[in-house]
Amino acid sequence: MRFRIKVLLHGCNGKLGQVIVNLVKNHDDFEIVAGIDTNTSVSHNFPVFTNIYHCHIFADVIIDFSTAKAIPDLIQYSIQKHIPLVLCTTGLTPEDIELVHTSSKLIPIFYSANMSLGINLIINLAKRATEILNDSGFDIEIIEKHHNKKIDAPSGTALAIAEGIQSSIREECTLMYDRSKENTPRAKNEIGIHAVRGGTIVGEHEIIFAGTDEIIKISHSATSKEIFGVGALKASRFLTNKPAGLYNMDDLLDLTK
Amino acid sequence: MRFRIKVLLHGCNGKLGQVIVNLVKNHDDFEIVAGIDTNTSVSHNFPVFTNIYHCHIFADVIIDFSTAKAIPDLIQYSIQKHIPLVLCTTGLTPEDIELVHTSSKLIPIFYSANMSLGINLIINLAKRATEILNDSGFDIEIIEKHHNKKIDAPSGTALAIAEGIQSSIREECTLMYDRSKENTPRAKNEIGIHAVRGGTIVGEHEIIFAGTDEIIKISHSATSKEIFGVGALKASRFLTNKPAGLYNMDDLLDLTK
Amino acid sequence: MRFRIKVLLHGCNGKLGQVIVNLVKNHDDFEIVAGIDTNTSVSHNFPVFTNIYHCHIFADVIIDFSTAKAIPDLIQYSIQKHIPLVLCTTGLTPEDIELVHTSSKLIPIFYSANMSLGINLIINLAKRATEILNDSGFDIEIIEKHHNKKIDAPSGTALAIAEGIQSSIREECTLMYDRSKENTPRAKNEIGIHAVRGGTIVGEHEIIFAGTDEIIKISHSATSKEIFGVGALKASRFLTNKPAGLYNMDDLLDLTK
Amino acid sequence: MRFRIKVLLHGCNGKLGQVIVNLVKNHDDFEIVAGIDTNTSVSHNFPVFTNIYHCHIFADVIIDFSTAKAIPDLIQYSIQKHIPLVLCTTGLTPEDIELVHTSSKLIPIFYSANMSLGINLIINLAKRATEILNDSGFDIEIIEKHHNKKIDAPSGTALAIAEGIQSSIREECTLMYDRSKENTPRAKNEIGIHAVRGGTIVGEHEIIFAGTDEIIKISHSATSKEIFGVGALKASRFLTNKPAGLYNMDDLLDLTK
Repeated sequence: MRFRIKVLLHGCNGKLGQVIVNLVKNHDDFEIVAGIDTNTSVSHNFPVFTNIYHCHIFADVIIDFSTAKAIPDLIQYSIQKHIPLVLCTTGLTPEDIELVHTSSKLIPIFYSANMSLGINLIINLAKRATEILNDSGFDIEIIEKHHNKKIDAPSGTALAIAEGIQSSIREECTLMYDRSKENTPRAKNEIGIHAVRGGTIVGEHEIIFAGTDEIIKISHSATSKEIFGVGALKASRFLTNKPAGLYNMDDLLDLTK
Repeated sequence: MRFRIKVLLHGCNGKLGQVIVNLVKNHDDFEIVAGIDTNTSVSHNFPVFTNIYHCHIFADVIIDFSTAKAIPDLIQYSIQKHIPLVLCTTGLTPEDIELVHTSSKLIPIFYSANMSLGINLIINLAKRATEILNDSGFDIEIIEKHHNKKIDAPSGTALAIAEGIQSSIREECTLMYDRSKENTPRAKNEIGIHAVRGGTIVGEHEIIFAGTDEIIKISHSATSKEIFGVGALKASRFLTNKPAGLYNMDDLLDLTK
Repeated sequence: MRFRIKVLLHGCNGKLGQVIVNLVKNHDDFEIVAGIDTNTSVSHNFPVFTNIYHCHIFADVIIDFSTAKAIPDLIQYSIQKHIPLVLCTTGLTPEDIELVHTSSKLIPIFYSANMSLGINLIINLAKRATEILNDSGFDIEIIEKHHNKKIDAPSGTALAIAEGIQSSIREECTLMYDRSKENTPRAKNEIGIHAVRGGTIVGEHEIIFAGTDEIIKISHSATSKEIFGVGALKASRFLTNKPAGLYNMDDLLDLTK
Repeated sequence: MRFRIKVLLHGCNGKLGQVIVNLVKNHDDFEIVAGIDTNTSVSHNFPVFTNIYHCHIFADVIIDFSTAKAIPDLIQYSIQKHIPLVLCTTGLTPEDIELVHTSSKLIPIFYSANMSLGINLIINLAKRATEILNDSGFDIEIIEKHHNKKIDAPSGTALAIAEGIQSSIREECTLMYDRSKENTPRAKNEIGIHAVRGGTIVGEHEIIFAGTDEIIKISHSATSKEIFGVGALKASRFLTNKPAGLYNMDDLLDLTK
């Protein structure tokens, strides 16, 4: 019989927690052994605890899709039980992030700003393109598209892309959100970011490199949030045989080589 | 022998005047009989006058790609000689436009904000789509892309598209240029307009209708300014047998039917 | 209290039948009064009959998402009970279609090759663009994209688009599926059709009009099959107060005006 | 005074030869000292020889945009005069390519299937994406678009992209040009290639990676052939201080690191 990775699912009844529950049904190499959630209205084929310290079931990995305020307890528990932690909650405070860093000396922690493989791949490709085109006079613009309910603009992912690009350019860049106020041509060292909002678009990001008589584009389009769950499972597989340390999607994708 | 339309080319040595000169070489049904331009540095196989009133050569149509300040004299000349006028100069003052309207009672005048057939077609298609999707909860966004030397943003064409769309919607709309300052979801009655600038992009315009689980897009992309010249020749053919009146690209395309 | 349209759902347990069940939960102006399906494994808050003749519940409209072989009985039942019929099953035989035509003299029947409003809209826009660009030397190509499980290629919708375009061109066109075998330039009167297959793409269709230095594109992208259900509900609303006759999506969209 | 690279332009009166002549006017660090062409109808500010052996003018580099049959003489001349050679002619025979390889032991030769930096960059990005997505169930498709006069399909560049992708996949792939004949779902190990032809499109190439609920695209679009000339100048700068050897665009872009 095949070895299965035993998952403790922290935040099992949130939107992305439930994505993990459904994904595991189709992934033979995983099984959820317990869940943690303050909301217990959903019934599962595994026990759900409202308090993580009440859970004494053995797990190979903890997958977390919860809320920032639950993170300190979660990390303390992971260290105490010595279980590798895949931390997918966003919006961590600087103190939380500091805690993640120090704790990763004791246990393996996987923590990425975006759990989608595809998004991490296009950030990496965009950085590479930026380095190579750097001296050839290409202008860089980012267009992101999301549903009409999204409150923040631009998306965190668009900013992460811009940050990746900037890390590959020698000089400082300005992010340009609105050209209707300007009456001057585009500056060389600016990155235009455009936030399209409409309908039920799950998420699209496109990076445009516009040069003399040629344009290069790199884009990612998501049609469901399931891709974040798939990323979490991949991260779990990756993490189970790793020593203590802080890992991210670049490590998983082997992009740092 | 075939009948040729005799053209008086007003502004024959500007960028678009020269496009017309080159186009006519490949269009058997046109011949340029004279040109008008203050710049006489280019040699042509037709006479060029610096003062339009010195030109007494018969013409079937005047094609104009000049500057706003030359327009009053041009219109007076067209009326005096009774020659149909294809007016392609942009940036007319309200007084000029008033003059165009009153003069069109005496001679046929063709005047369009944009001389490209394709642009006029997509404006028409966008209006139709807007009318049909009006009650179905679609959000409308416009993305335009131009070269990095363009000073104004958004493009005049993007604004003409937005105006066309607004004329097809019952309620008032707001044009939204920058969402990074807001912290609220998209308003129902707003049209987002995004001005991408980069490299040598001649001109791209895309209208996005984003609804529940479906997106409709209508776009136009130009790779040279020649398309404006082609539009001027089509307008000239259209105008030669018309009575006095004011005509535009919609009449030519038969879009008003 | 508001009037609700009473729906008899024929094929209530198929994939699209269930889409209707879910949609109606969020549409106050509809209620499902009964379902018909040979499969009775799904429980509903309305009665389900395996034999349509056993159903004597009053309905304002029948929505059908079933299989071709169930159509003759369904039509006979609709006539007998005099209930308007929204017929969404595809793959009808020529005899079925003949039956639809003759029966529509007795009751109102809505029957469209594709129930999506968006798809019908882009077909209409493509026909209009074709008519207007007809003499201007534009080449027309269609790209459709679907998931990697789809067996037929090109999609029925791509063929319907091509058919619409052909009806707007005076001369005969050839559909071109593969240029790798040819060693000649593109023929003027051909329409290229390209079937991209990959991943879980629900359905994308793009029509390209490529001319001299300009390109016009019209596209539709669906991210769920729910759009067909939305179309069926719109058709039901449209049909409830109509006299006997055969109606389609163009009538609903008022595109034939 | 600044050092200028002295160029011997082989094929100076062909379409791409003339692109080089025009580019050099705007590139201070180059000067053309002589041209070779059997066609001598164009006048230049440098001498043009019909027979390369008659040219005894010193040059730092030879840029070649000629025809395959002129290559053996050209290579022999380059070796004899010991001048670095940027070889941009396409359609070389296997014997020519063998000659290029052996000659590169004596002089530096730059030889790339495609002289555009952008195209070489997207091939490199596509290979990287292929490697990373390899085990994640993504389907790969290529769409290329060219003008309606192009005779071959698919484009040589599309085939070069497919070859690059295949070199990054462990198992063998089939190139699929036409799905209308098949009646089976997409095979896992196939790469769909679609050749769109229309209008005056200079050249577009897009690689699509379609996975479960996400799509990644990498694309290149050219609006003039000038980009090949720019690549030739970059290759010339690169080659002037290199030892004997065979170099290509990957070396220039430093993509092999």
